[in-house]
Amino acid sequence: MNTPFPFPNAGRPSNRQIVLGRRPNGTPSADDFAIWHAEIPHVQPGEVLIRNLFLSVEPAMRGWVNIAANYGTPVPVGGLMPSFAVGEVIESRLDGFEVGDHLMGMFGWQEYCVAGAGAIKRKILERDLSVSLALGILGVNGITAYFGTVETARAARGETLLVSTAAGAVGSAVGQIAKILGCRVIGIAGGAEKTEWCKSLGFDVAVDYKAPTFAEELAAACKGGVDVFFDNTAGPVADEAAKHLSRGARVVVCGTSSIATWDPWPVGPRIERALLVKRASMTGFLVMDYEARYQEAVDWLAPHVRSGRLAFREDITDGLESAMPAIGELYSGVNRGKRLIRLGRA
Amino acid sequence: MNTPFPFPNAGRPSNRQIVLGRRPNGTPSADDFAIWHAEIPHVQPGEVLIRNLFLSVEPAMRGWVNIAANYGTPVPVGGLMPSFAVGEVIESRLDGFEVGDHLMGMFGWQEYCVAGAGAIKRKILERDLSVSLALGILGVNGITAYFGTVETARAARGETLLVSTAAGAVGSAVGQIAKILGCRVIGIAGGAEKTEWCKSLGFDVAVDYKAPTFAEELAAACKGGVDVFFDNTAGPVADEAAKHLSRGARVVVCGTSSIATWDPWPVGPRIERALLVKRASMTGFLVMDYEARYQEAVDWLAPHVRSGRLAFREDITDGLESAMPAIGELYSGVNRGKRLIRLGRA
Repeated sequence: MNTPFPFPNAGRPSNRQIVLGRRPNGTPSADDFAIWHAEIPHVQPGEVLIRNLFLSVEPAMRGWVNIAANYGTPVPVGGLMPSFAVGEVIESRLDGFEVGDHLMGMFGWQEYCVAGAGAIKRKILERDLSVSLALGILGVNGITAYFGTVETARAARGETLLVSTAAGAVGSAVGQIAKILGCRVIGIAGGAEKTEWCKSLGFDVAVDYKAPTFAEELAAACKGGVDVFFDNTAGPVADEAAKHLSRGARVVVCGTSSIATWDPWPVGPRIERALLVKRASMTGFLVMDYEARYQEAVDWLAPHVRSGRLAFREDITDGLESAMPAIGELYSGVNRGKRLIRLGRA
Repeated sequence: MNTPFPFPNAGRPSNRQIVLGRRPNGTPSADDFAIWHAEIPHVQPGEVLIRNLFLSVEPAMRGWVNIAANYGTPVPVGGLMPSFAVGEVIESRLDGFEVGDHLMGMFGWQEYCVAGAGAIKRKILERDLSVSLALGILGVNGITAYFGTVETARAARGETLLVSTAAGAVGSAVGQIAKILGCRVIGIAGGAEKTEWCKSLGFDVAVDYKAPTFAEELAAACKGGVDVFFDNTAGPVADEAAKHLSRGARVVVCGTSSIATWDPWPVGPRIERALLVKRASMTGFLVMDYEARYQEAVDWLAPHVRSGRLAFREDITDGLESAMPAIGELYSGVNRGKRLIRLGRA
């Protein structure tokens, strides 16, 4: 068997991994992680060996490492930090996958990954575009925006869509998709630079939640009622937005970025009456439920990326270590666009 | 024109009405209402004169008289208390309606009502059954339970449905409809008499929210997860129930009886993460949106009433004055079944 590594007689290189060093309560900091040097397992039948090119940093990772109610069991202390990543196949014993294929999947915060079919989410077919896009506008962010807006929210031509964290990787895609669908789009973002960027994307209105006049400005922007509220925050900004729902409005709960921890469980204004009076609905959205349909979203999104209609920003740092503080940075509001860690070039 | 009144030479009798005497904040008491003697207007073309037989008392009336965010403008001070009622047509100048017809509609807390087509909700065709049922199990309560369970909740065979205020006019119908649909049904009610009654209706489990072991008992009953939570409370009981949603669960917000006032707006545990983690939805339900389809629900419900499969209780007092304290009595938990005011016999 040929070794895929460029060190034919040197044995396999070590695989640097980021592991969870201790359990955080709330937003994890760099100190909560550690670097671990592991061996790369031999590839078994049904597996591929992947060299990771880009690692993703997601707001949802805060939830993955915390102990409170979550989608599954939290990342164990000492365990590899799970992550979406894109990588290149350097050895394959899995039917349908060949050396040189670019894949997106749950490959973890590490340099190399031996993966079975279950960890592979998509073969990247749009080889004319940067492979990094498969983690952003053509990855989980864009796919989340697409299915959340089109299916869960059922946003329709002529309706008004409001989106929070509007300058973020998901929010900016939601607003632009809604514009393509024919909606009036209002974005909520923090600070003038972000609201200006939203306007440059074609949003009809962008409101700065850090401004002292936020409530009044939002009320003015939402005067005709909000048919779809795509929320990534679950905090005071969302509470303000909930006052402007129109009859039959759909609220998509896509994230809860305003809530640093769910232990203890936070309180807020009760939503029941707002939903009842407006016959509105509020629905949780998780992109993982759409795994089997990722390519369908990419097929819709990619032409708009190529034409420039669907703009995006990437915020890339180099080197595995730069992932360690990156979750915390997402929540401090300093980053611009999809946060990525570059390990190598395709 | 023949007068419909049995006093041919005495002119028209006065019409006793209950009006809102002052604006309550929270649950209205008898003192918030007054009796008013009004003239009965002459019937114009397109109208009928109705002698009210039964008046309804609804939990929702608390909302109608309060000033806080509501479905419409609140009942004005000095204005007739609006209400569903059933009555007999004693004069008709409206096509399709004849003297002797029994009607259900928004006829108000008064003895007589001159009504146009807009106030008439349904002609009562099931003349073999008590006319009072058109305000309860075959009225807004049963119709609410039917559309809320079948359409908003999409309760399906084999699923688990949890309902709060399970011994109430809506809740008891919800549970029984769900049993007919093939669901496992868990009811939450206050006190042993009410939980026993729920069990006698065929509920699989009935949990007493007044018991000190309520949380544990509810958790045990909901161990397999709750697919549908039909809520009439929006308070601590609902918060406890929200912990047991299954993946893809549907929460129907049908009422907010635990919240005495929305001014100031109450706080509670944030629901967003529970919905997100479970990809669950929470939807406001108002029966008035189904007005055009009331007969469809009655056609489904009536055979089950006749067969005895769909049981109900009525809590009837005689005389217009007995309506004045009745809203408050609904919230004190003393009544059993649909609360009605009887003014006359068919």
